[in-house]
Amino acid sequence: MDPKELAQQVIDGNRRALARAITLVESARADHREQAIILMDALKASNRVALRVGLSGTPGVGKSTFIETFGMMLIREGLKVAVLAVDPSSSRSGGSILGDKTRMELLSREPHAFIRPSPSQLELGGVARRTREAVSLCEAAGYDIILIETVGVGQSETVVSQMSDLFLLLLAPAGGDELQGVKRGIMEIADMILVNKADGDLKAAANRTCADYAGALRLIRKRSYDPEGYPKAMTVSALQDNGLTEAWTDMQTLIDWRRAHGHFDARRARQAEYWFAQEIRFGLLGQLDREPLKSMIAQLAGQVASGDITPSHAAHDVLTALREG
Amino acid sequence: MDPKELAQQVIDGNRRALARAITLVESARADHREQAIILMDALKASNRVALRVGLSGTPGVGKSTFIETFGMMLIREGLKVAVLAVDPSSSRSGGSILGDKTRMELLSREPHAFIRPSPSQLELGGVARRTREAVSLCEAAGYDIILIETVGVGQSETVVSQMSDLFLLLLAPAGGDELQGVKRGIMEIADMILVNKADGDLKAAANRTCADYAGALRLIRKRSYDPEGYPKAMTVSALQDNGLTEAWTDMQTLIDWRRAHGHFDARRARQAEYWFAQEIRFGLLGQLDREPLKSMIAQLAGQVASGDITPSHAAHDVLTALREG
Repeated sequence: MDPKELAQQVIDGNRRALARAITLVESARADHREQAIILMDALKASNRVALRVGLSGTPGVGKSTFIETFGMMLIREGLKVAVLAVDPSSSRSGGSILGDKTRMELLSREPHAFIRPSPSQLELGGVARRTREAVSLCEAAGYDIILIETVGVGQSETVVSQMSDLFLLLLAPAGGDELQGVKRGIMEIADMILVNKADGDLKAAANRTCADYAGALRLIRKRSYDPEGYPKAMTVSALQDNGLTEAWTDMQTLIDWRRAHGHFDARRARQAEYWFAQEIRFGLLGQLDREPLKSMIAQLAGQVASGDITPSHAAHDVLTALREG
Repeated sequence: MDPKELAQQVIDGNRRALARAITLVESARADHREQAIILMDALKASNRVALRVGLSGTPGVGKSTFIETFGMMLIREGLKVAVLAVDPSSSRSGGSILGDKTRMELLSREPHAFIRPSPSQLELGGVARRTREAVSLCEAAGYDIILIETVGVGQSETVVSQMSDLFLLLLAPAGGDELQGVKRGIMEIADMILVNKADGDLKAAANRTCADYAGALRLIRKRSYDPEGYPKAMTVSALQDNGLTEAWTDMQTLIDWRRAHGHFDARRARQAEYWFAQEIRFGLLGQLDREPLKSMIAQLAGQVASGDITPSHAAHDVLTALREG
């Protein structure tokens, strides 16, 4: 199908077209990439701006339950919700988080919800591009809130935060000494920390953990793009649907303030520049993984290791071969 | 001069030729780079293998005094010593560590010593390549020990450890709670930790600091390329020339063991492969800093930020321009 026509169908709210469009942006084929670029260009006509919410949490913190309960709450408010995932492990395992829609049984049956698992068999760079473009597709399709889920592994949090207007860190109740388990860099990109499972036996531990993180957040340098009181930590229970309305209110307060002060648009502009630079790097370095260069590099690496050729000379040969096609 | 002839003069021990050769590898000009590659190829004829010792320490730990005293001790043992530096800050400040040879007054007057400051006005990638090639030049010129100094900032320790057979971390006496100031990654690449200034009022503090680091080193996973008892921490006083002979004996023990077990050569082979990969990356990404691409990218970045073009589309245009020359 003509990519411009596909874009129009996406904008018109056709779910099958949206799914097809995401499949197109996932493809690594050169002709598909050309079509994807035309498709993405044509989305501008929609002029829609969704709220993009990144959500990170290690396995076991109750991410699926949170998305299910939070998503259903948003839908009851009359909003349309899309759920995407960045799963850095899926390229290795072939599996994917969100692969099993039964993890979000109610949400997956909602006509106003759209759930798409993380693509498998892609490198993180590929997952990042596909998810970023899928976010734009869902936005153009009229979804109001786009949840972008990731497990807290390696660089995936950075990837997700760079495509989110708001970044949530979901944590489980724990002893205070486990605070160190969350890397400082992650604390710095979090806009809100939600300590989940604040119910039953874990309620007291959740409150303690929340207080610990609230303290840790106060130690972080005040950020110019936050109103007073942010970033903040709070407890929720996704299982019992407690605290999610409050969390949503606080998210809206934060985002309204950022919109009013120009930080919302500024962040998106910065993110676009970031992805532009990343796409160039990704495209350049990607050349090294393709034949015949890949074999040439492997062969030269052996000669470099054995001392038959200097690293500079071998690199010079590779770059010359690249330049001369 | 013909680069092959220059190489021969370097191998013959001509100091002026060595200095000229280093100037040549520092140059970013394309024709100089071609000559540098021929020069580096021609060094193989020397068949010399020096001991490359990386040395990291923050300002104030007494690095210059250590190099001065340690270097003079090596020279008394009949060895020839070269001192190079990787200074990531020099590209910004225009200044350079080792810029003032009076910092090593005795050593700089020794005929068996060669001291070369860090080049200024180069990016870390450029400093890395130049220093790596300068190390090979000094090695071919017959220097037995090559000390590669760096301040402990950012990535410079990784750069230096990737061109060293042995990596020393020089520390000052401190309270035990400052142990956290040394990043875990640095602890993991250190072969020996030397706590300097173990003299006068600071002697007791130096012993405490040394014990703290010895304890920390024991927590690091045993490395297959180390004999029993390594990595190790010890105290020295560069000012009073105390402990340096012992440190040198321990360095030799470590290196002899690594040579005997194949780890010395294996490490150099791995390093060569690392630099090969780095040179390719450096060369590829370096294209983006050159005109007319640089201006094209800057202009597109503005359009990307304002939303006039998608990041993928803009990157596609850059990569196409690059491919089509």
